[in-house]
Amino acid sequence: MRIPTHGDVQAARERIRGIAVRTPLLRNDELDAITGARVFVKAESLQRGGAFKMRGAANAIAALAPEARRHGVLAYSSGNHAIAVATAAKVFGISATIVMPSDAPSIKIETTRGLGAEIIAYDRVRESRESIGSGIAAARGLTIVRPFDDPEVIAGQGTVGLEIAEEIAPDLVLTPASGGGLASGLALALPEAAIFAVEPSGHDDLARTLAAGKIETNPPGVRSICDGLLTERIGDITYAIAKQRFAGVLVQPDDAVLRAMRFAFLKLKLVLEPSGAIALAAALEGAINMSNKAVVVIASGGNVDAATFARALA
Amino acid sequence: MRIPTHGDVQAARERIRGIAVRTPLLRNDELDAITGARVFVKAESLQRGGAFKMRGAANAIAALAPEARRHGVLAYSSGNHAIAVATAAKVFGISATIVMPSDAPSIKIETTRGLGAEIIAYDRVRESRESIGSGIAAARGLTIVRPFDDPEVIAGQGTVGLEIAEEIAPDLVLTPASGGGLASGLALALPEAAIFAVEPSGHDDLARTLAAGKIETNPPGVRSICDGLLTERIGDITYAIAKQRFAGVLVQPDDAVLRAMRFAFLKLKLVLEPSGAIALAAALEGAINMSNKAVVVIASGGNVDAATFARALA
Repeated sequence: MRIPTHGDVQAARERIRGIAVRTPLLRNDELDAITGARVFVKAESLQRGGAFKMRGAANAIAALAPEARRHGVLAYSSGNHAIAVATAAKVFGISATIVMPSDAPSIKIETTRGLGAEIIAYDRVRESRESIGSGIAAARGLTIVRPFDDPEVIAGQGTVGLEIAEEIAPDLVLTPASGGGLASGLALALPEAAIFAVEPSGHDDLARTLAAGKIETNPPGVRSICDGLLTERIGDITYAIAKQRFAGVLVQPDDAVLRAMRFAFLKLKLVLEPSGAIALAAALEGAINMSNKAVVVIASGGNVDAATFARALA
Repeated sequence: MRIPTHGDVQAARERIRGIAVRTPLLRNDELDAITGARVFVKAESLQRGGAFKMRGAANAIAALAPEARRHGVLAYSSGNHAIAVATAAKVFGISATIVMPSDAPSIKIETTRGLGAEIIAYDRVRESRESIGSGIAAARGLTIVRPFDDPEVIAGQGTVGLEIAEEIAPDLVLTPASGGGLASGLALALPEAAIFAVEPSGHDDLARTLAAGKIETNPPGVRSICDGLLTERIGDITYAIAKQRFAGVLVQPDDAVLRAMRFAFLKLKLVLEPSGAIALAAALEGAINMSNKAVVVIASGGNVDAATFARALA
């Protein structure tokens, strides 16, 4: 198991220049007034593909040896990681094979197919995506791009932090977390900042993991509006970084997430998906004292359907 | 009548540095595919106050003699200019009095009041905001900050163009236009670009004005979802710039504006108000051949209420 370093994040930044875009740090007077802090919202919802995931996928593909890259990549995902890998593969002109559950939202399947990826459907109840994926990858000579527990994926997500560091030196960073790729990448990129992971109520494996000093899992079947933050557990590499570097874990319920989406609409003029708004929710709800601090809130994505968004506005 | 110059725009850029924020130029692969152009969306919806108007207001106030500034400012506006003047006045620590129609969108009235401005309501049909405004300004010693027909306001809006020029050299710029402050500021800032103004169907005074070679007005009572683009006519200063520099005028109906708002939600993850989406509408509807050009689309604002936004999503 290789733990990526700050140097890996810097290398990632060079590799994905011109592929991922630099996203803005937004200010809002009302947000400062509510929190008592100087808050900077890193709008990764404006990233290509509508989420930070493009960074890690692009870096993982760019870091492959040319021979391996030529053969193409495989990913298993029901959502944003699938779209990110398909998009990055298209940029590099290579094939992408995506193993998706047959009951994934049709919009996500169609979007992924529309990017030129080959979709392999599987039965979420009876089959294992890992064994299907590794079987196909071995048979076809494809490289698997994991959604978070991969040094180059983590380093790619960490480029969010390098962009922040070029503009400000944050005291605190609040970031959505589930598998931990983004949060651990930020920790590598911003060694002086206190990193707070934010996860959905009822799906608080990360809080329990850091408290117990060993990896805890979520019970199956937990529901949350934050559909992008429902992995069973943190990864092994991301956990190794988390236990050393995370300052704490904050937990937010769905109704606070919906309020944050509404605040983002009204005040920041950002479209955020629930998972992308949970760190903003923690800031708005006063989950932590940020008084007089320089705080970065990561708004990690904006891929939300109209019905869910309308629910937040209501 | 003083016509501002490129130098005035550069001076404005220095004056409002740290007050207005630098907004991003966003790319989207689908937008490029639809238009056949390289399109850059200048997201002024992410500007402080949710619209470009902050630039002109801040520059006009910053350019006042200290003695005049100390007495405070007055503006008449149905929306974004009101918010901009209130925000800029707050930054400078001076009072703002805003004359607003009583039927202005409630989000705009509430936001303006929340910024500490005094609101004077008037009846749009029976009363003249100019005479109400000039009466109060004279009585209280306030300086009027005009919404568009003022050299410093135009120069301030032109800073949008200077930011664009620092990143790319556009062939075409598509911008919402009504009073013409933003469009003429862009023309000053980007002397090499072809400036296309976009206005709402049924409110096409600018198209008629440029065709006739003299200022034409809109008939009273025309309705459009683009509440920020309903001035009676272009200004005298802005017309002087427009007749020399505008390459053309495009007209878009409300339904195209709603489709553009939906596209901005789904693909760009931007909250745009109708007036802020009309230039994007012209690009998406193919109102002009942009094949292989570098095109900037100005997304000028995002101050929209939930009900109107939900209508665009439906």
